[in-house]
Amino acid sequence: MNIATRLRIDSVRATTEAGSGHPSTCCSAAEIVAALFFAEMRYDARDPQNPDNDRFVLSKGHAAPILYAAWAEAGFVKRDDLLNLRKLDSDLEGHPTPRLPFVDVATGSLGQGLCAGVGIALNARRIGSDYRTYVLLGDGESAEGAVWEAADVAAFDTLDSLCAITDVNALGQSGPTQWQHDMEALAGRWRGFGWHTIVVDGHDLPAILDALGKARQTRGRPAMILAKTLKGKGVSLMEGKGGWHGKPLKKGEELDKALAELHAQFVPEDGPAQRPERPKAAENAALKAARRPQPKAGTVGPSAYTLGDSVATREAYGAAIARLAATDDRIVALDADVKNSTFSDKFEQQHPDRFYQNFIAEQVMIGAAMGLASRGAIPFPSTFAAFLTRAYDFIRMAAISNLNVKMAGSHAGVSIGEDGPSQMALEDLAMMRAEPNIAVLYPCDGVSTEKLVERMAYHAGPAYMRTSRPKTPVIYGSDEDFTVGGLKVLRESTTDAATVVGGGVTVFEALKAYDELKNQGINIRVIDLYSLQPIDAATLVRCARETRGRVITVEDHYAGGGIGDAVASAIASEGFTVKRLAVGAIPRSGTPDQLLDHFGISARHIIAAVRS
Amino acid sequence: MNIATRLRIDSVRATTEAGSGHPSTCCSAAEIVAALFFAEMRYDARDPQNPDNDRFVLSKGHAAPILYAAWAEAGFVKRDDLLNLRKLDSDLEGHPTPRLPFVDVATGSLGQGLCAGVGIALNARRIGSDYRTYVLLGDGESAEGAVWEAADVAAFDTLDSLCAITDVNALGQSGPTQWQHDMEALAGRWRGFGWHTIVVDGHDLPAILDALGKARQTRGRPAMILAKTLKGKGVSLMEGKGGWHGKPLKKGEELDKALAELHAQFVPEDGPAQRPERPKAAENAALKAARRPQPKAGTVGPSAYTLGDSVATREAYGAAIARLAATDDRIVALDADVKNSTFSDKFEQQHPDRFYQNFIAEQVMIGAAMGLASRGAIPFPSTFAAFLTRAYDFIRMAAISNLNVKMAGSHAGVSIGEDGPSQMALEDLAMMRAEPNIAVLYPCDGVSTEKLVERMAYHAGPAYMRTSRPKTPVIYGSDEDFTVGGLKVLRESTTDAATVVGGGVTVFEALKAYDELKNQGINIRVIDLYSLQPIDAATLVRCARETRGRVITVEDHYAGGGIGDAVASAIASEGFTVKRLAVGAIPRSGTPDQLLDHFGISARHIIAAVRS
Repeated sequence: MNIATRLRIDSVRATTEAGSGHPSTCCSAAEIVAALFFAEMRYDARDPQNPDNDRFVLSKGHAAPILYAAWAEAGFVKRDDLLNLRKLDSDLEGHPTPRLPFVDVATGSLGQGLCAGVGIALNARRIGSDYRTYVLLGDGESAEGAVWEAADVAAFDTLDSLCAITDVNALGQSGPTQWQHDMEALAGRWRGFGWHTIVVDGHDLPAILDALGKARQTRGRPAMILAKTLKGKGVSLMEGKGGWHGKPLKKGEELDKALAELHAQFVPEDGPAQRPERPKAAENAALKAARRPQPKAGTVGPSAYTLGDSVATREAYGAAIARLAATDDRIVALDADVKNSTFSDKFEQQHPDRFYQNFIAEQVMIGAAMGLASRGAIPFPSTFAAFLTRAYDFIRMAAISNLNVKMAGSHAGVSIGEDGPSQMALEDLAMMRAEPNIAVLYPCDGVSTEKLVERMAYHAGPAYMRTSRPKTPVIYGSDEDFTVGGLKVLRESTTDAATVVGGGVTVFEALKAYDELKNQGINIRVIDLYSLQPIDAATLVRCARETRGRVITVEDHYAGGGIGDAVASAIASEGFTVKRLAVGAIPRSGTPDQLLDHFGISARHIIAAVRS
Repeated sequence: MNIATRLRIDSVRATTEAGSGHPSTCCSAAEIVAALFFAEMRYDARDPQNPDNDRFVLSKGHAAPILYAAWAEAGFVKRDDLLNLRKLDSDLEGHPTPRLPFVDVATGSLGQGLCAGVGIALNARRIGSDYRTYVLLGDGESAEGAVWEAADVAAFDTLDSLCAITDVNALGQSGPTQWQHDMEALAGRWRGFGWHTIVVDGHDLPAILDALGKARQTRGRPAMILAKTLKGKGVSLMEGKGGWHGKPLKKGEELDKALAELHAQFVPEDGPAQRPERPKAAENAALKAARRPQPKAGTVGPSAYTLGDSVATREAYGAAIARLAATDDRIVALDADVKNSTFSDKFEQQHPDRFYQNFIAEQVMIGAAMGLASRGAIPFPSTFAAFLTRAYDFIRMAAISNLNVKMAGSHAGVSIGEDGPSQMALEDLAMMRAEPNIAVLYPCDGVSTEKLVERMAYHAGPAYMRTSRPKTPVIYGSDEDFTVGGLKVLRESTTDAATVVGGGVTVFEALKAYDELKNQGINIRVIDLYSLQPIDAATLVRCARETRGRVITVEDHYAGGGIGDAVASAIASEGFTVKRLAVGAIPRSGTPDQLLDHFGISARHIIAAVRS
């Protein structure tokens, strides 16, 4: 088929024009991509976002030029535009991002695509579509653990609509892959993980089509096609040779020779060129759309708590997502074997069909959430906040993709107590706040948790909610309003000596300090900073001004990147600074109260800071 | 053997006394731990740090009580101390940390132990010891991708001194594991990954000992013993039952009944109790110690660069670790298939026996570095800084363990250019700086890179160096000194209108701004903040004061948690604030210069900030 040759030519030309990029990894995948896009997949090439289109995830994101070439071949991208690859004013970036309507999730950090594929395949079940999900991996990236997390979950969830293809070109960036062309070594791994595994010659188009057909007929388990290929296939200078990773051909002789070789590979067409079949569902898209209700924002409903109740924010979180989901079927939840600690089990009890258990595998949990979000779901993945660090690279890519992933991390800080530092999240606020488009929320009581769950669900883009292990008193009335970017001034007078800003459990330490100081004749202002990002800078500046610039932050988090830095950054422009109380050293086991005091963030320390 | 029963009794009693913890997961592992500690392993129980002791890593860290019980049985921990479990003043924490001399790496974040085990086994080769490395995993944590990264690397490196045991008790925290007791499903995975895999009844002591013996005789590949067990074994209330994860027995009837049941399981000793054999090597420890040279700090030696040279800091990094390693054989390097980008290939070329290729698997790279560091090596793992986010949970645990892991991340920021956001590290400084004991270094030229490589190697604890992709001019003379916690004031006058603090590539933007402003008759102070943590607060405060509080930071990093926050935090106590120039939005592909300007961190933007 001549399409593969055209894809090679377009990839080689675009990377040479850009002066950087990965022609060799495009060339190894040309027959695979041609088979997928122009024979196997059912999609409306004029409408890449059609909900019933088959989906394609390019996990080996550095092969972006061949993805763009395929969409040019399909007629969606203008062929001339391919030569704008990697330019500042072009969306044809070095690695694919969802700035392009045919890209669901940004790739380029290897090993993530199959995780997203799991979520995209789960979404087909959710919306009752028969679309299939295809993921193209490199062999090198198969060393990433995330790939095997996805392999495990996909097999457990019997995702037979998921078909992965590995382009086994045997060469990584810096040398041969560990398996090189030992196809049986790779096949043994996938079979061991319960996948229907097929080995083919990745340059033999009929063999690839046959394998795709077998995969399509597989029931009850996902399929992996291991395609043996040569990196740089079709260009003698690069074909099967090391030293050609991420290296374009030079303009002039190198490029001209390669193009001549490739042009010589065109064969006389034996009949009309195969064109993409439009997705079956697209043919009666109007009908389907009518059957699918228009999505509409739901609500958590009336508060479950009254003033003075005692409830852990993690428990209020679980109850709130369950109630919200009852009014909006886009809401789904994922967990990593701690549903009885994050309280996402409350969701599972009411919506078992929309709850996805990822066992102890945080990367695929966030990756699957990315895939689900990319197809219109509003996923709430949850685990201990400490273990979200395991998925930071996925969170980073979710931010780059600007996806509606709504993360919840429980068991924040030293206030978890005896389990010790491995279970305490003390860097999660820094991690989340570093990403400029992640909303970072940290409610202190049951009511604010409920309200913020609803807000974060419909906030555009990724969001994070930090919840706490200990029960805390409900301090807000059920009619209180909370917004992404807001805060609450809990205590305020005209004679406040200082502003104390807390979040989560430290709000209550600040309130204790308030009471004790009041007995001593000193008023302080107390702020519940439930939204760290965006942040209500105007109110913080006003309070700083009204308390003569004396601002104290107190947080159950390390000093770097958390509440202290967030407040300091917000009020710096007006010349105000912050005195920070935070966990300054690696903590250890103990009771919550002992630890809050030992690490300098209890009421006693707030009082001392105010008095000094 | 009665030891297993005693381990159960101690675990049950300690957790009941603590009022929290995991007796059920201890009970499933009792025969395994008894077999390892009192028959299989060779170690000097009086000297847990003896370099020739066999090593044991409890990857399922929540089973800590049985680890402590084993060391009590071996005579190193006082049996009475076991009842101080999880108390603030006890080192017997909820999960093991290296505060205890018999713990190499902190565990409790599941799925990490086998990665550390890879490093510990590699270290045996490094020091020429015949010690063996044992890792006890849970079945639940086998869902973590990191386990399979380790499985892959251990097989590739033919680590036959590594023996892992999985306690397959079939119950996770929130329900059954995905495989439950399907031992063949698990065995297929390990066989697929090339491990010698043995399935046993995990409560059959002779069977376990036999399997351990077979593992010991295996050559050329690591061994996995899959032990079928019952969670809570030996206590009828818990045995094989759900709902007992992380739940101690109640004092009174529950505990009494359990202890009575366990006591009834003692059998008459059929001969003298087996005691641990001291390690063979310990018998002539003095001899061995004499053969092993005392470690002594090495040096990078004279600078390879002269003023005005042009070299990328990533390249200077690779050259420096290679030279340092020539003078100190504790220095080792690890990489994740980007050695020709991080320039760790310069190290490999000169010290191939001390270079470990981890392919595209960042978690096992950092985990193995943790294991190596725990046994006296000084490992330098390197990859693109963006991809260190993949290993953040490991980095967090390395910080908790306070290990000498010296991380290097290349390709920082938008200045990498065309590859686009997936390859750009823009949150690495925030991530590293959040951990209070990680030294965070960011050299701007070749000379400072060399000097700081040497400094970070011998700095006690974890450290991180951020390197850049583009070549930068050498601005320091070869006699210039650099310290962890220092900075350089590059331009200074008595009439400076503002202090501009940069790091890495932005130092040169600041110098460009200096030149242009000077032409306009305005002097500015320019600081190269090559150490973000610790930070030279005194000099920053002095400069802030001398420039009338006008401090501008400029960084190739997102706004949260980086140079801006670090400087703001350092000078806040004196009432000074910071104007921050940083990357404020998700970037995209483009040329380095275009992107520096587009995202507001070029000389032009510095000049505008100074002038305003």
